[in-house]
Amino acid sequence: MRESAHLSPAPTLNGTEPRINRRQAAKVRTRQKVLEAARDLFAERGYEPATIRDIAKGAGMSTGAVFANFQDKAELFEAVLTEDMTSLAETLKGGAGKGSVQERLNSALAAGYHGSLDQLPLFQAIVARSWFQPLAAETRARAVSAQVTSVISEILRDGIGTNEIKQDADITLLTEMVWDAYLSNYRRAAYDGWSLETLSGHLDKQLKVILAGAVAR
Amino acid sequence: MRESAHLSPAPTLNGTEPRINRRQAAKVRTRQKVLEAARDLFAERGYEPATIRDIAKGAGMSTGAVFANFQDKAELFEAVLTEDMTSLAETLKGGAGKGSVQERLNSALAAGYHGSLDQLPLFQAIVARSWFQPLAAETRARAVSAQVTSVISEILRDGIGTNEIKQDADITLLTEMVWDAYLSNYRRAAYDGWSLETLSGHLDKQLKVILAGAVAR
Repeated sequence: MRESAHLSPAPTLNGTEPRINRRQAAKVRTRQKVLEAARDLFAERGYEPATIRDIAKGAGMSTGAVFANFQDKAELFEAVLTEDMTSLAETLKGGAGKGSVQERLNSALAAGYHGSLDQLPLFQAIVARSWFQPLAAETRARAVSAQVTSVISEILRDGIGTNEIKQDADITLLTEMVWDAYLSNYRRAAYDGWSLETLSGHLDKQLKVILAGAVAR
Repeated sequence: MRESAHLSPAPTLNGTEPRINRRQAAKVRTRQKVLEAARDLFAERGYEPATIRDIAKGAGMSTGAVFANFQDKAELFEAVLTEDMTSLAETLKGGAGKGSVQERLNSALAAGYHGSLDQLPLFQAIVARSWFQPLAAETRARAVSAQVTSVISEILRDGIGTNEIKQDADITLLTEMVWDAYLSNYRRAAYDGWSLETLSGHLDKQLKVILAGAVAR
């Protein structure tokens, strides 16, 4: 993988490691600058209208410098997606807290909204792209999103452990429905100007519906 | 509205109405040809990469002839969306049949899948666009989709009438969740090759989850 290749030390033959490390550090900085510019442009225009030329311009470098780091726009988009989903998964994990399954899901996902509302157009671009991309890209995107959905299914499985959720509950189905509900609310934030509080309140109603049949009585 | 304007008779001063009617008929045919070409191109490429030039080419006419019928690509897309949602609403109404609320929802929505699976890429393009469009376009798209969602909420309200669904059920919320579940399955059809049977079976599980807390006991 390109990522690991440029982060692992290159073989040195003549003790010039510090120089190579400086070069490596510069390369990481360049890569990060490209990613930031790409993130801004995808958020502003969506995937299709964003061009490598304009991403390079946004990063203050040549298109050649962009291509030295990323094969094409699709790879650039996936790198942004990976960063964002990894960060969202961490946020959800940190936000889960204690309480009932519904409370834990709501506080984890509310933390997710909190951490991503300032990136709303980027999330819109990500979901839009997810509906119209090559199968290989979709497959990789699912693997990346699985980091986030696994936080949801872990909370649900914990609920089975504590007998709050029925033993035979379909965790895969419930996870998918919670994730879809979570994502669908970004639309309301985007077009209806929903605040964090409104989002979290609506999500709580959706969670109540989704969990109604799964909660052990 | 452009639609009604070109369908209503133009004022005639000299008894040439038949000629004008032929011209009107030709205009309707031209419009329809443009719509078909647009539909094909949106399905093939998605919204952004589709150009008026290529739509005109697909319809075998000049870009001028396209612009004589549609102001821009956004209006063309909305005309396709309106046709499709109107037709989907009719299909759902026709498919609802008899039985429990879950059975009626499932047969209505399975009819929807049946009538639209051959247009799968167009549906993908429509959902993708719905995530990244100007607010005014979103507002119009919602008005058009309301034709479809109202079929869902009518079935749910019928269930309140027959005491199958609780009197205080949140029909707006349930409708939204059924519609989101319905749409989300198009992804599985697109990327996982789900058949009509698989879609309908999965939808049935989703409906069961959504209705679990709303069914009166």
